[in-house]
Amino acid sequence: MFADELKRLDPDLDIRLWPHFGKADEIEFVLTWNHPLGEFNKFKKLKCIASLGAGIDHLLRDPDLPEAVPITRVIQSSMAQFMSEYVILGVLHYCRQFAMYKDDQAVKRWQPRQPILARDIGIGIMGLGQLGADAACKLVQLDFNVAGWSRTPKTIGGVESYAGDEALDDFLSRSDILICLLPLTPDTRGILNAGIFEKLPAGAYLINVARGAHLVEKDLLAALDAGHLSGACLDVFQTEPLPEDHPFWNHPKIFITPHISSITDPMAVMPQILENYRRMKSGKPLRHVVDINRGY
Amino acid sequence: MFADELKRLDPDLDIRLWPHFGKADEIEFVLTWNHPLGEFNKFKKLKCIASLGAGIDHLLRDPDLPEAVPITRVIQSSMAQFMSEYVILGVLHYCRQFAMYKDDQAVKRWQPRQPILARDIGIGIMGLGQLGADAACKLVQLDFNVAGWSRTPKTIGGVESYAGDEALDDFLSRSDILICLLPLTPDTRGILNAGIFEKLPAGAYLINVARGAHLVEKDLLAALDAGHLSGACLDVFQTEPLPEDHPFWNHPKIFITPHISSITDPMAVMPQILENYRRMKSGKPLRHVVDINRGY
Repeated sequence: MFADELKRLDPDLDIRLWPHFGKADEIEFVLTWNHPLGEFNKFKKLKCIASLGAGIDHLLRDPDLPEAVPITRVIQSSMAQFMSEYVILGVLHYCRQFAMYKDDQAVKRWQPRQPILARDIGIGIMGLGQLGADAACKLVQLDFNVAGWSRTPKTIGGVESYAGDEALDDFLSRSDILICLLPLTPDTRGILNAGIFEKLPAGAYLINVARGAHLVEKDLLAALDAGHLSGACLDVFQTEPLPEDHPFWNHPKIFITPHISSITDPMAVMPQILENYRRMKSGKPLRHVVDINRGY
Repeated sequence: MFADELKRLDPDLDIRLWPHFGKADEIEFVLTWNHPLGEFNKFKKLKCIASLGAGIDHLLRDPDLPEAVPITRVIQSSMAQFMSEYVILGVLHYCRQFAMYKDDQAVKRWQPRQPILARDIGIGIMGLGQLGADAACKLVQLDFNVAGWSRTPKTIGGVESYAGDEALDDFLSRSDILICLLPLTPDTRGILNAGIFEKLPAGAYLINVARGAHLVEKDLLAALDAGHLSGACLDVFQTEPLPEDHPFWNHPKIFITPHISSITDPMAVMPQILENYRRMKSGKPLRHVVDINRGY
């Protein structure tokens, strides 16, 4: 499918589909998503590993990832738009109690509830990359009080910036709704844990749309059951599809969606892939190169 | 409660609480919401009827409304903010299928669904007053294609304006999601009817957040059951609370909320009321006077 699209863009491309890649030493450029571990070692002349998505955690799980080969990711504006829609929906769905009204409807109960007003709460976004920054801006436009936490300080109109470990506690203490849009790296794996939850205001709400591995699932269950957190909207999980016996499924405070917060349109990023392939061939600097040490 | 707030703002005010209004001829200014019919005739020296809300349909239902007395309404920016939140939520809740995912969760079903993309649909807003204009702007910021229909043409950035009866069919034909934010007037009562629905694209979705009397409820049921409309999000109804035996309650394509789309904060509008009272006393022009013939 991707090969067809690339061929359409450039009929002269020499494309090999794994595992039928021919002579390994002829492979200079790999386009990949969730590859089988250890395969890259075969390609001694590799010059670029191109991730088909925005994240590269699927690459970093390979202990044999060749260190000297640059890794690129793709950037897609529609991905941010789509993610921001989900984030706004998750926030308003909670503030305006649509899940409760759906339950009310099932039992024909007419019961207006006190809504959560934008002016009364703070929203905290962990991660202010392309996705986090877009969501932050759009929530500001809706008059929410938005803060962001990132590795380095960011300047985004109307968004309070908190940076680094030393600012984390202050950031958490004003986040009535905590939204995780961090990249998954060794530093951020399991970051949504009991230590974080206890620093959130009582009654805080969690929205995780990044990766399932950001969340320590048992810590969330404990914080919900203790009543410290009021609920969670989760789109990503340690294991997907979420196993049938998982306690999240029928937890009354958890709203589940099946990893649909963002979509990439892989066909739409093929020109980016081709552009980097041509840059590689002509010795120009690659675009969207990932810093392996940061993980994004 | 309102009397206390007005007294706090101006301790010299002479406030009478119905039905203990003393001598009827001493009443010059009435503050009211859903008044008992026919009462206004008692007040021969009335100079202003102030509605406690943005709508005045509760006044117009009185056949004995004194014609010569100006009617004012209140304008509250937080009302538009709150309504726009609901409208955005209603749109995204439909496009991103949160109601279906909630049903899926109840039966532990992991089933990603094809979302409705903003770029693929048109949103049509009937009514571009304070509320409609605000919702239109915010939906444009989220990259939806938004058109508005109103009595007279409006210029709102990014919003296609359709005006008058002659433009209605064109407006409807491009509205995959139809949102009613019209004032309730003799012209708009029952406007959401079979004749309108059949001009919408197949699969269109209705959001009514204006008044229950805008909608011909049996026509909606027929359009849903015929499969021409795909669903509806309704916050207002002919009879509220919605009667227990009403077919909307357990209709699988209807999402119900109990008239919570917007709230007025009556205490916050007391300064507007006082301002108009003082204008009346000093003979200055009143603010937010309603044109009875338009009905808003």
